[in-house]
Amino acid sequence: MSGAAEIQKLVIASGNAGKLREIRHLLDPLGIEVLPQSAFSITEVEEPYCTFVENALAKARHASKSSGLAALADDSGICANALNGGPGVYSARYAGEPKSDERNNQKLVDVLRNQTDRRAHYYCVMVLVRHADDPQPIIADGAWHGEIILEPRGEGGFGYDPYFFLPDLGKTGAELPMELKNRISHRGKALARLTECLKEGAF
Amino acid sequence: MSGAAEIQKLVIASGNAGKLREIRHLLDPLGIEVLPQSAFSITEVEEPYCTFVENALAKARHASKSSGLAALADDSGICANALNGGPGVYSARYAGEPKSDERNNQKLVDVLRNQTDRRAHYYCVMVLVRHADDPQPIIADGAWHGEIILEPRGEGGFGYDPYFFLPDLGKTGAELPMELKNRISHRGKALARLTECLKEGAF
Repeated sequence: MSGAAEIQKLVIASGNAGKLREIRHLLDPLGIEVLPQSAFSITEVEEPYCTFVENALAKARHASKSSGLAALADDSGICANALNGGPGVYSARYAGEPKSDERNNQKLVDVLRNQTDRRAHYYCVMVLVRHADDPQPIIADGAWHGEIILEPRGEGGFGYDPYFFLPDLGKTGAELPMELKNRISHRGKALARLTECLKEGAF
Repeated sequence: MSGAAEIQKLVIASGNAGKLREIRHLLDPLGIEVLPQSAFSITEVEEPYCTFVENALAKARHASKSSGLAALADDSGICANALNGGPGVYSARYAGEPKSDERNNQKLVDVLRNQTDRRAHYYCVMVLVRHADDPQPIIADGAWHGEIILEPRGEGGFGYDPYFFLPDLGKTGAELPMELKNRISHRGKALARLTECLKEGAF
């Protein structure tokens, strides 16, 4: 498998239209056709692992098995210093089911209210498998550091963005133009690194 | 978990003295003390996974649980194009138990003898966990491309090195001075990338 350079088509294990658009934008110049999971019967898969990378790998494998194609999946979350990296892999369901950004944010603000260290980072890992049993998935990750504030600011973004403050920019993630956020965010960095790996075509 | 910069001590999940020396050499300048697994009761762990990264993660977790420290493990193997990436994660036990470099090499040469494409690459992935449940292990990998020849050359190295020919250098892995091999090999590249991640201290 000298591999990466040979990928001509891949499926994205995500139903998110924004992610799909962003990934297409980056992989199109590499001659890689990016298909949405909706083109195949890809069901949701369990994410039972304690690491982001194992969850992403499970999703990528499942999508590859269902589609017969190479597949790309990501997993991401927010990790607070005072919570020893939590909510981490549980970020999307921090306040329980059904998933709710509003309740998740409320819970995070509540548990950090009396903490002096409110630093946190978003983390994203992307995993690309060439086939379901690929022994050597391409793994690319990125982190985005900021701090949690107690009152929301901004209308953009999603997830914890309105409470995720970037001291250098004086803004929250929800106050950034999407183009800027896509460039500097955890996901932006992971995608840039993934593109680099694919360009190198090293393996 | 801004994490990486805070690692002061870690255990290497390997009994290999050469690896230990090499890793110490790289991490010492970062103020990270590297301990051998022999300082703890670390037993061998199963490596049942089909990916290098999952096997390395299993070893790192196990070493961290046994020692109570951050732990670094690697997994590596050789992947032949004509074998669709095999023997891959099975490289060390390709010709069965007990493990034997000689029988492994014989088997690889036998199966590739009538193939025209004898390109292969070594691959190494290093995984560092800060604790056994670390949601965000540091993952660093590297590949080393060459081709398999049918007659061995050189006395150095180990594993498949005497049959792993580097066209650019006109030598096999077993003919290279150790210092050069450590710099350009799959493991050298993975370690360089790991050091980079630790220096960035990004997460």
